[in-house]
Formats: sequence, C-alpha cells, structure tokens
Amino acid sequence: MGRPSGADPGASSRSTLAERFSRVRARSQALVAHLSAEDLCVQSMADASPAKWHLAHTTWFFEAVVLAPQLPHYRVQDPRWSCLFNSYYESLGPRHPRPQRGLLTRPGLADVHRYRECVEAAVGELIERPDGGSRDEVAALIELGLQHEQQHQELMLTDLLHAMSCNPLLPACMPADAAPAAPRAPGGEMRWLAGREGQVEIGHAGPGFAFDNETPRHRVWLEPHCIADRLVTCGEYGDFIADGGYRRPSLWLSDGWALVQAQGWTAPAYWIAPGDARAPAPHWQVFGLAGVQPLEPAAPVMHLSFYEAAAYAQWAGARLPTEAEWEADHDLPGIGQVQGHAWQWTRSSHDPYPGYRPWRGAIGEYNGKFMSGQMVLRGGSLATPPGHARATYRNFFPPSARWQFSGLRLARDGA
Amino acid sequence: MGRPSGADPGASSRSTLAERFSRVRARSQALVAHLSAEDLCVQSMADASPAKWHLAHTTWFFEAVVLAPQLPHYRVQDPRWSCLFNSYYESLGPRHPRPQRGLLTRPGLADVHRYRECVEAAVGELIERPDGGSRDEVAALIELGLQHEQQHQELMLTDLLHAMSCNPLLPACMPADAAPAAPRAPGGEMRWLAGREGQVEIGHAGPGFAFDNETPRHRVWLEPHCIADRLVTCGEYGDFIADGGYRRPSLWLSDGWALVQAQGWTAPAYWIAPGDARAPAPHWQVFGLAGVQPLEPAAPVMHLSFYEAAAYAQWAGARLPTEAEWEADHDLPGIGQVQGHAWQWTRSSHDPYPGYRPWRGAIGEYNGKFMSGQMVLRGGSLATPPGHARATYRNFFPPSARWQFSGLRLARDGA
Amino acid sequence: MGRPSGADPGASSRSTLAERFSRVRARSQALVAHLSAEDLCVQSMADASPAKWHLAHTTWFFEAVVLAPQLPHYRVQDPRWSCLFNSYYESLGPRHPRPQRGLLTRPGLADVHRYRECVEAAVGELIERPDGGSRDEVAALIELGLQHEQQHQELMLTDLLHAMSCNPLLPACMPADAAPAAPRAPGGEMRWLAGREGQVEIGHAGPGFAFDNETPRHRVWLEPHCIADRLVTCGEYGDFIADGGYRRPSLWLSDGWALVQAQGWTAPAYWIAPGDARAPAPHWQVFGLAGVQPLEPAAPVMHLSFYEAAAYAQWAGARLPTEAEWEADHDLPGIGQVQGHAWQWTRSSHDPYPGYRPWRGAIGEYNGKFMSGQMVLRGGSLATPPGHARATYRNFFPPSARWQFSGLRLARDGA
Amino acid sequence: MGRPSGADPGASSRSTLAERFSRVRARSQALVAHLSAEDLCVQSMADASPAKWHLAHTTWFFEAVVLAPQLPHYRVQDPRWSCLFNSYYESLGPRHPRPQRGLLTRPGLADVHRYRECVEAAVGELIERPDGGSRDEVAALIELGLQHEQQHQELMLTDLLHAMSCNPLLPACMPADAAPAAPRAPGGEMRWLAGREGQVEIGHAGPGFAFDNETPRHRVWLEPHCIADRLVTCGEYGDFIADGGYRRPSLWLSDGWALVQAQGWTAPAYWIAPGDARAPAPHWQVFGLAGVQPLEPAAPVMHLSFYEAAAYAQWAGARLPTEAEWEADHDLPGIGQVQGHAWQWTRSSHDPYPGYRPWRGAIGEYNGKFMSGQMVLRGGSLATPPGHARATYRNFFPPSARWQFSGLRLARDGA
Repeated sequence: MGRPSGADPGASSRSTLAERFSRVRARSQALVAHLSAEDLCVQSMADASPAKWHLAHTTWFFEAVVLAPQLPHYRVQDPRWSCLFNSYYESLGPRHPRPQRGLLTRPGLADVHRYRECVEAAVGELIERPDGGSRDEVAALIELGLQHEQQHQELMLTDLLHAMSCNPLLPACMPADAAPAAPRAPGGEMRWLAGREGQVEIGHAGPGFAFDNETPRHRVWLEPHCIADRLVTCGEYGDFIADGGYRRPSLWLSDGWALVQAQGWTAPAYWIAPGDARAPAPHWQVFGLAGVQPLEPAAPVMHLSFYEAAAYAQWAGARLPTEAEWEADHDLPGIGQVQGHAWQWTRSSHDPYPGYRPWRGAIGEYNGKFMSGQMVLRGGSLATPPGHARATYRNFFPPSARWQFSGLRLARDGA
Repeated sequence: MGRPSGADPGASSRSTLAERFSRVRARSQALVAHLSAEDLCVQSMADASPAKWHLAHTTWFFEAVVLAPQLPHYRVQDPRWSCLFNSYYESLGPRHPRPQRGLLTRPGLADVHRYRECVEAAVGELIERPDGGSRDEVAALIELGLQHEQQHQELMLTDLLHAMSCNPLLPACMPADAAPAAPRAPGGEMRWLAGREGQVEIGHAGPGFAFDNETPRHRVWLEPHCIADRLVTCGEYGDFIADGGYRRPSLWLSDGWALVQAQGWTAPAYWIAPGDARAPAPHWQVFGLAGVQPLEPAAPVMHLSFYEAAAYAQWAGARLPTEAEWEADHDLPGIGQVQGHAWQWTRSSHDPYPGYRPWRGAIGEYNGKFMSGQMVLRGGSLATPPGHARATYRNFFPPSARWQFSGLRLARDGA
Repeated sequence: MGRPSGADPGASSRSTLAERFSRVRARSQALVAHLSAEDLCVQSMADASPAKWHLAHTTWFFEAVVLAPQLPHYRVQDPRWSCLFNSYYESLGPRHPRPQRGLLTRPGLADVHRYRECVEAAVGELIERPDGGSRDEVAALIELGLQHEQQHQELMLTDLLHAMSCNPLLPACMPADAAPAAPRAPGGEMRWLAGREGQVEIGHAGPGFAFDNETPRHRVWLEPHCIADRLVTCGEYGDFIADGGYRRPSLWLSDGWALVQAQGWTAPAYWIAPGDARAPAPHWQVFGLAGVQPLEPAAPVMHLSFYEAAAYAQWAGARLPTEAEWEADHDLPGIGQVQGHAWQWTRSSHDPYPGYRPWRGAIGEYNGKFMSGQMVLRGGSLATPPGHARATYRNFFPPSARWQFSGLRLARDGA
Repeated sequence: MGRPSGADPGASSRSTLAERFSRVRARSQALVAHLSAEDLCVQSMADASPAKWHLAHTTWFFEAVVLAPQLPHYRVQDPRWSCLFNSYYESLGPRHPRPQRGLLTRPGLADVHRYRECVEAAVGELIERPDGGSRDEVAALIELGLQHEQQHQELMLTDLLHAMSCNPLLPACMPADAAPAAPRAPGGEMRWLAGREGQVEIGHAGPGFAFDNETPRHRVWLEPHCIADRLVTCGEYGDFIADGGYRRPSLWLSDGWALVQAQGWTAPAYWIAPGDARAPAPHWQVFGLAGVQPLEPAAPVMHLSFYEAAAYAQWAGARLPTEAEWEADHDLPGIGQVQGHAWQWTRSSHDPYPGYRPWRGAIGEYNGKFMSGQMVLRGGSLATPPGHARATYRNFFPPSARWQFSGLRLARDGA
C-alpha cells in the first residue's frame, strides 16, 4: 500500500468528514482547557514536548502534508514555523532541536490558537472544493492528519503529566471530573485463557484506516500458550515490590537491571512511597492527571517500562505475550481490559511485517524509520481517544519508556 | 564586619527607606512588563533562571532573611515555596534543583505577583514598626534585600536575552525605546593612561552599603602600568576575528582554547554572522534586548568570556588589568566608560581580600563560598541598575561565562 | 532443556574430551603469540576487553562453572580473582567494572599463564576421575566451557583489532601469514535464490551442542522471498558510499541516522580514506589483523553496524533477511559464503524463541538476559574458530556495534 | 626574561652538565625498575599518563626543544612519534588525544628504552661540540629539559599510584625500601609563627634556574598574619572527618561541596576505611607507593584537593596561606616541613606575576597558558626529586586534583 486509505466511502462524505475534523480538532483544545500558558509551554525532558508544541505540530502536519500539496494557492502561515513544528520529517526540511522545544515561548499560545483556526479554515475550504479528481486522496490525507492528531492527544496528556510530576507541588493537570478514567476493572482472580494456536493471521487488511506498520496482513504460527483475562493490578505489582522485585538481578534483563541501578528505580513512575515529603501519607499514592490519589489495588498498574513489565512477568512465573499472540487472542471469550485501560507491553520488537512497505513520500517516515530499538505495545489506554485504536494497532516505545500509560498482561507457554 | 551595614543614617529614615523599597521593587516588575507569562517561565540553560523565578526568589529573600527573623508573627506565604525559591543557601533548607527551575509552571505568574504584594506589605509593616531596638539591623537587612534584588534585575535581563537567543525567531525582549542603553561612547583612538603605582589602598571602608567581598580595605603594591581610557569596541574586536583570532591557539589560555574548539566559538555570543538564516543580512548583526540590530563598530564589545577577553588582549599586545589596578585607576583623569557600558573582565580571580570575613549567619553564603573558579569583573553594564555599582564592587563569573554584558578594557606593563 | 548437552556420546569419551580440551585451550594462546604483554593488557573501549582478560576470564569460567561445583576439594587460585574475571554473572558474585578491565596490570601476563596451567591441570584431573555418576554433566559443562572459550577467541581478535586501530601507528596484530583469512570469494554477479516458504522449522533439536538461545526447534511461517547467493562486497559498498549513502537520511533508520551524524561515520569501521595521514595512499585501504591492506573490491564488506547494513539494503532496493529466512535458506543449492567470511546482520531482534527456557543456575545468565536491545547475526566470520558455528547459531550484538567481523547478505520480498 | 637561564656558570661546564644529565635521566629509569611493561603502559584517568609515556615524552622534549633546533643534521627517531609524545605544545604540531595515551601499546617499552638511549647519545654529542657560540643557550635548554624531566619523575609516581589504586588487589608500586619517604615529622603541638608583614619581595631573580612563572621578582604588601610551623597531620585530619567535615556544607566552597556530593568523598584519596573489602582491617589505612600501610597519625595528610584543604582550614578556624605569605615565611625560624613532605595548597590562583613574560618560542607554552583554573601549591613533596624545588617554585593543579602528594599548612589573620 503506497498511501493511507480513508475510512469507509460513506464516512468520507464531505459533511461527515468536516464534522469529524471539527470534533477531533476541538478535542485537542478541550484537553488543555484547564491549564495555563505556562503549563502548555514547558518541556520536562527531551522525550516529551510542550502541549503548545503538540497543538502547533498537529496543525503544521495538516499544513505540510495536506494543504501545501493539495490546496492551490495556499500560503503557509509563517515559513519560519515549519522548522519549529516539524517533528522528524527529514524530507520536509530542517528542524528545531527536539530537546529545545520548551524554549519556544514565541509564537505564544494565542498565536498558536490563531494558527489552528487559520489552518482549520483552509482544511474546511479544501473539504468543500468541488473538483473531485483527488478527493479520495484528500480525504485519506485528512484522515491521516486526524489519526495523527489523536496520537498527539494522548502524548499531550502523558507529557503534561510528566511535566507536572517534576514540580514538587505535584499540581493536578485537570480536575478529577475532567480527567479521563478507565472503565471499572473486573474484580477477582486473574484467569488463564487458552490462546489461539497454529496458523493465524495478523495485521490490517481493511476496510478503514490503519497505519502502514499494521500491514500487510500475514500468516504467523503460534505455539500453544495461555493469556491472562485481565491486566496486572497495582496490588499484584505491589507484591512484586514487597518481594524485592527491584533488588533481584535474576528477574531482570541486563539492560533493565542497569537502568534500575542507574536511575534508582524502586517502583513504577509516579508511585509515591509512604512518607514522601511532597505528599506525606502513611500509604502508597499515585500521581495522575487529577493529582495525587491513593493507590487503588484493583486498578491496572501503569507507567512501567518494558523492563519492569518483563521482570514482573519473570517473577510471576510467566512471560509477556508476543504481539501476534496478543492480536490473535484479543477477542477470546472472557478476555477483558483489552482497550481503554493501559497499553500492554509485548515481548515483540517493532520490526517490519513481512512484505511491509512504508507509505510513499514524506509520510513514509511516519513509522518505518522507527523500526529499531522499540518494543510494541498493544491495546490502548484510558488516555487513548475513544475509537482511535484497533486490534491491529501497533504502538511502540523504547523499552526504557515509563511516562506512558503502559502496563502489562501476562502470558505463558503451554495449553 | 559581621553583618551588612545600611546606607547613611539619614538615608535610612523610615519614609526614605519605604520609598526606596517601593521604587526598587517596582523596577523589577517594570523590566518584564512587555513579556508574556510564557517568556517569564522559561529556563534556557542551567546557569540562567526564569524571570518569574527571579521575581519570586528576590521576594523569598526578603521573607527568609528579613521577615521571618525580624517580624514577629510573620507567617510564610507557603512553606513549600522555600524549597522552590531558595537559590543556594544550604543553611536555609533544601532546594529545588537549579537546572529544573524552568519546570515550575506553578505557582503561576499571577501567584508570584500576589506573593510579591504580600511580602511587600509585610516589609512595609516592618519598616513602620515603632520598636527601635533592632532598627538599624532591620534597615541594613532591607538594604541588603534591595541590593540583592538589583543584582537579580540585571540577571533577569541577561537570562531573558539568553532565552530569546535560543529561539530561531530571535524575538526582542522589549521595544527599543524600553531597552536600557549605554551613554554615547567616546569617539576616536584609544589612549593609554599612566596608572597609579606603588602602595595603594583598595576595598570598601564605608560609609554606605557594600557586599562583604569588597572588604576590608587594604594595601596593595602596584607596579608601573598603563590602562586604556575606554573599552575595546566591536570594530576592534572584529579586527581580531578577521585576523584569525579564533583559530590561533597561541593567543589563548589552555582552557579557553579547549572551549573554542568544543563549542565552535567564532565570535562573541549573540553576534550574527552575515548570511545567518535566522536574520539574513550581508553584514554582521548583534542580538540584543531590543532584537537584532546592525553591529555598531564604535560600541563596546560585549558578551565575551574571560578567555576571549584575555585572547583579545594577547593579540593586541596588551593584557587585562588586575582588579587592584582597575580600582586604583577608575577615577584617573581622562578615563571613560567606567560604568554603565559593560562589565570589564579583570586578570584577577575572586579570592578573599586579606582579613576577609563573611557575614554572620545565612547571608555568609552570599559571596564567600564562591571564592574559587570565578574571575572578577569590574565597572557595571548598561543593564546594571543605576546607582547599584561602586568603584569597589566585585562582580564575578566563571571564566567561560558569555551571557553577561561583559567586555574588556586593556592594560599593559610599564609606565 | 535445563542444562547444556554435550556432543555425541562417542565424542565425549575421556581421551577425546581431553584432547579437544587441550586443543581449544592451546588455540587461545596461539592466537596472541605474536603480541606483547602491553598489547594484551590494553582496553580500548568499554565494549572490548583486554586479551589478557579474555585469557583469564575463560579460565575463571572453568573454575567457577566446572571445577568449583564438580571437583571435590578444588581450591580456587585466588579468591580475589573471581571479582576481576567474572564477566557478568550476577549470581556468581560482585564484578570489577567492565570499563576498567584495562587497568588490571596485575595479575600480570605470566601470572595469567600460570593460572591457565593450573586450571587446565585440574580439568584434566576431573576428566580422568573414575566416578561416573555425573560424568555426562561434567562432559557437558566442559564442552560449554570450550564453546565459551571459542566465542572469546573471536572476541579476543575483534578487541585486539579495535585496540590497534586506536594507535595512529596502525600496528598489525599479527603477520599476514598468521592472520585468519576467508576462503576465496565467489566471483561474478550476485544472484537471487528463491527462498524456502510456507511452514518451516528453525532452531536446534540436537544432537550435539547448542546454546540455550537456539532452542527449542519450532515452526515459523515464511512468505515468499529471495535471498542473495553471496555477501555484499566492498566494491558494492563503495558504490553506496559514492552515491551519498552516508548523507541521505531517507536510507536510514532514525537511530542509525542519529549515529551517523553524532559519530561522523562516512565508511565502515577500519576503512581508511585516500589521503589519511596515518597511512597515506591514493586509494581506499582497510585496517585488519595483518595491518593496513588495499581494499579488495571482491571481498565481503565487514565492520558494519546493523544500521549501515540496513541502509545499504534500503539503497539497494532490498532488505536484510530475517533470521528465520536465513536459517531456512542456509543450505539452498547455489548459496555461498554462509560461514567463514563475515557475520551477517539479520532483520531480527534477539528475542526468545517460543517456549525458550534459559539453562538452570548461573549459566542461565549466559544468553537469556541479553534478549533486549540486540540484533541477531548469523553465519560466522573468518575469525570464528573452525567448527564452532552452526546453522542454528544465534550471534547477537547491539545495532550500533561495528567492531565485529560483521557484514550482510541481501534478501527481498516475493518469489 | 625571554628564555630559561642555566644554572651557575661553573655548574654548566661540559663535564658537569654531562654528568648531571646522565644522573637525572638514569633516575627516571630507576624509579620504575620494579614495574612490569604492563604497569608502565596503563593510563587510569585522563589527567594521568602512562609511565612509559612519561619516559618517552621527556625524551621527545629533548629531541624537539634541544636537538632539532641545536644539533645540525640531527634526525628525529620517528617523525610519527612527535604526535604521540608531544604533550600540549600547539606550536610543535598535532597531538595524540591525551585520554588515549594508555592505548599506545606501541612503541613498546623496549622501543622507548632504545629511544631514550639514542636521544641521550645525541645530547651527549651536543654537549661535547666545540662551537661555543650558542653554548650558553644549549646548556640552558638542556637544563630546562632536565628540570622538565624531574617534574615528570614526580608525575610518574603520582600517576602510577593512581593506576595501582584502581586495581582491587592494591598492588604496591615498589618495595617499601625503594619507595621515597619523608624525613621524620616534628612531634608535638602545632605552633603559630608570626609571619613577615608589610612590603616584601617574592619571585625569582637568579642566579640559577627557575621557571618563567616564578618571575619577575616583585613587591607585595602583606598584612599581619601567622603561619603554622608544620603541616596538618593525618590525625588532625581524622578529627575533621570524625567531626562531620565531609557532611557540613558550611565548611566548603560551593564547587567543593558539589564535588563532595557528586564523587561521594568521605576521606582523602587513598585512605582506606576500616572494613574495606580490598584490605580488611579494623583501623584506617593508607594506600601508598609501597602498598597498603596503617595510617600514621603524626604524618602529614596528603592526597587532598584544594577544596578539602580549604574546608579543613575553615573547620580549624584558620585559612590557607597565600603564596606570597608562604614564600615570605618559608625560612622563618622554627618553621618545619617546608620541603620533602607534601605540596601545600595555597589560597592563591595561578595568576601571572606583575610584568610576567612567557619564554619565547614553543617553551612559552610551558606555564603561561595554564594561568586560569589552577591553584598554586608550594613546597615540595616526598616524591619531588631532591634539589628540584625552590622557595620561589610555583606548582599548580586544578582545585579538584587529589592524586598529587598534596597537603596543607595553616595560616591565620593577625599577628
């Protein structure tokens, strides 16, 4: 497949597309409505970006990928902004260094809001244009821009959470009633479900949108295995900590153990130990979008690196599922917490599928060049925009990443 | 001297002090009036601080050094803020890591303004209190707080300039008519003035305020030497560049040459070479508080490290003056540009004067613990608050620092 | 499989084992016979180890894994040496920091030779002991020690080559007639061979020795693909360089491009550009075990990182084979240069096979904990001890590693 | 003074010079006679050099500074070695990176010994040449080469000691009866001696050899002060440790306290705490040239950084002497341990004396370019070659340096 395909033909009718475009774009703004210009400008580490930058970058993406090639006579807002808001597209020109995105106090937040409005108006114009020649391509590119924006909606939350976590005052990103929440967790003991085995197919084969890295659909052979019916909970992870999980090298991959020691990890990111001076309490707490909350033992554990997920699985006498197992088993009867709770680390590197072809042109850089040094996560978290993820969706992060809403589901060999 | 002394007894009368307090505090706010909350929150390097932090830190200083010990029943604004806004006083408790000051989006700018108002009201109350027992000490501590605030007024400008210089858009910190400017430079050739020689006295002996590192006044023996009647200009420094100054190791101190190579220095900080993509022009330009301006050949060169100043002097067949020479010669007939233009690197390390005693208590950390690894600068820059500096004033920075308004005046051996 | 299995029962008879033990151990010493004590002590980077350390570490391995548990009354040579010569076995006690192995001038080379002799005598005694109870386990452990030593024989050469490459004199590690050489390369054009497809089996299932990471044998589904009949040559790689291969980000994985820029890569490691001051010549040369030699266009290119191999494949309109493809196709009619030339980077991460179980005990750390951040190489190089590698052999290194004898073989999708 | 002056005319007669040359050169070899080629090749940190490198560099110095310019037809041993053994002379060509000196296993130790012999023969020839025109200059340059070699003799010992200290086996550099030792320390209480005050002269004014940084002799004004009659002892320093010296920031300069925390300093370098696994004992021990020895309470404390020396002085209610005080007081009646025990940190930065001129030519780089970031030490240590140091001698190191034989003598203000 050389370019992204749109959604169902019916869904791409003009008014539907325009309406979806408005709704997705508005959601980005709504997510940060409770925060100040200062909050939206800050960058707390090289891996994270300021929320204002996310707002501008997703807008630049429409400008550079949709408007500039597709809307005749379109003039970019400010040619110097391309350098500021291009994330990593080598073919679209030079880029401001990623670790310095937080230094961009200009353009200011109000300027970025105006930028969004102008680009939204131009996309609206493009949607309404009568010449149908490239209408499917335009619709597909706009859909790509929306999917891209949805990815950044989640990143905006993870990056804001990280920034707030660096402030000793531990301010909430938003009021509790505005923060995204997971559906109620299933109670009770974890159960093992027999996974699908033998020859299965995984990957996307349409219809509907998918990223290039989900294709092509292909055959995989699965050995007999079981998969857990739910995610690992905070309570279970607390048992791992209490049993010396962070002090026993035999449980860890070598790179992970090196990080445990170098970074002094003793719990998931954002867990607050009893007695922490920033938020004194006699029990464990967790810092989240709505601020400091008591640790909920039944909730899925989150903010784990791959290494911690793998060490927990080792301690539990189990392992992480491969991404093929995860995908094959995602709709097993009785399985729960597939989406909407936490991304689930798999034991699979983000390698190309057999026959993988990146999209043509600049968007070929979207996923293809990140096929080394990354592990695949499956599912979707409470911060993933509703409707965004799929069973074939391949999220990926370096194994050391902890600031995502990342947890785990166990698997094991044998029927 | 165990504690700072106030100004002349007359000047410390209540109404005079209250008026001076208001004026100095108001100037801090006026300096940043043209900037956004985002501009005031950003931190562009570990050595610099956000302007909002400066506004809060100078307020905390009054709270911790003046109000808490002197005003009965005073309650600190928020006990958690002491950690955020304490700069380096080990004896006043733990501190937020300096390189992470830019992450403090909270308290927000409006909160800091309120903090300033509350503390100002409390200091006003303290000034008016009738019990005269410790009145001299109170006045002296308030004066110290104001001198401290004035120092941070200059730092606020240097730090803002650095932050803006990191933005490819090179935004101005303020309109040209609001930016501080130096008095007109003397025209014509530099002239050598015969310096004072033999036994001289340097250092502060009162009356009036001085920092502890300016004391005690003491005798120094000076060999015959000459000192320049004005500062080195941008035009002269341009000749040094054109003559290969940044490519000839023989001109440089070893540590300086290592930095030239490691950092790729080819001109002073904030000089913009012809053709620079950020502000294309066929001639050299300089980025300053009012934005990009054409290089003015007759203006004093600024934003030099000590190493560059020393290399220039070597190239010019001269040397930097020692701080004793500078102080002894500061009022020679015919000497110009002593204050109000640029800080002047001296060939002197920031060592204690013979008989030096730090102030007692927390403020003993003010200068004394920085008596290694720092070079002395004398004079005062266009960004120094009028009336702040003195002939005995010892400013100091590491020899690698370039973001200050730092230039040089030449000296040479012999009469 | 809980522990390593020995070779064929016949091969493990006492005299055969003793003879094999002597031969393998003697080869380690022969490899460094031309080098000085200084050459054998040096460590040129954290990833490499001194040759003397390799000689001692392989001896410690026999002591810790074979003699201490299996030979009653055996007393270790020096209890303090365990810390020095333990590589990474957390369960066998603390370790001298890896980057500081080059600082171990003591024990001296002569002491290490004596250490080798003592341990060899003790292993000889163990082989001859009459009590047959654990004879199979002893034989298996000794075989593991020998396989381990063979791995270090290759590492000793790669590490020596790296050390010598850091010396501007570019000294040879050994005379040309003593240096290992590859068999003659097949001439002519590269040909595409149709690879095996559909369901295949890969992995080791005995008989004979294999490392734990080669097991268990399992089914994999392969899509139609082709594989090259020989390795990519230096001449072909030179075309990639000449075509701007190191200057075109579109050819590179993101992490690879970052390294190209950060490290200034412009050619494989050990390639010497025309005019290099260390060995002036008008043509490209290559630094190898026998010193500087003219680049041989028909020879397989070596000393590539995974990133360079993948970028070359991208440039050539092809890709790297997966390790399953490589193993399934290794004995295709017409395929050449499978072993004895260069390790071949695959597109596969070093993940566990389905059903993988590490060995029990300390040797469980041998491979299992390195199953993240590593890419698989297949085949075997000119520096691999003859008879050491297998079709199922999984060598692995981080994708940035260039100091191994690592090249590539192309593959492509479709029949 | 544009060039080094020789010793007394009488002393520079040919046979005397030849004899002195032989004796100094032989001492370099004798110092390392007990060590292996491995020991002499290793480099344990960037600031230290391998002993073999010292042996070669001092030889290169004669070749580059004496033979090449003064002995017609002299041909350098190997033109490529100039790059290897040039330390920091920019004007004498490119240099092998300092942190990689330990990678130079070639030329081997035997080659370096031959290099020394060849250069010694050539210098011998030069001494005997009849043409007296430049005889004084030749003698002066040879004397400079010998003074240079003596400096490296001490560095060779400090660097060897550091290298051995990195080996957990803590091997001795030499037998106790071969290791240099200090004269017996004076017993009893430290006494304060009234220092010289008012106008004094310091600096070298001949006759005899001195380095350029000791000149010119000049006047300095000294305030009333006292100086200690002996060095601070290990026992006294132990009291500082026991009193929490390494845990009290108020005692430390800011840069020093940062190092204490970053490096985890809790005692002088080479002090071994009770229970240290490398050399278990119930009491403090010290690692020295002859290996591990019990701490001797009456011996001068050594291996302190400037920061530790200054912190100790602060704790003791005293201060470090300035270098002018030290020099003026060095021959006070009753003063002891001036030389031959430990270098003594002063409170003076290594700034140029008034009227200082570096030597002309390449040797102008000897001291002049290190006049920033260095503190002056005075006296001389047990490792300083007898007869090498003078009262005017200015040794210098960065304030963080601990691997020298550096201790302290106290001073205080007032008569």
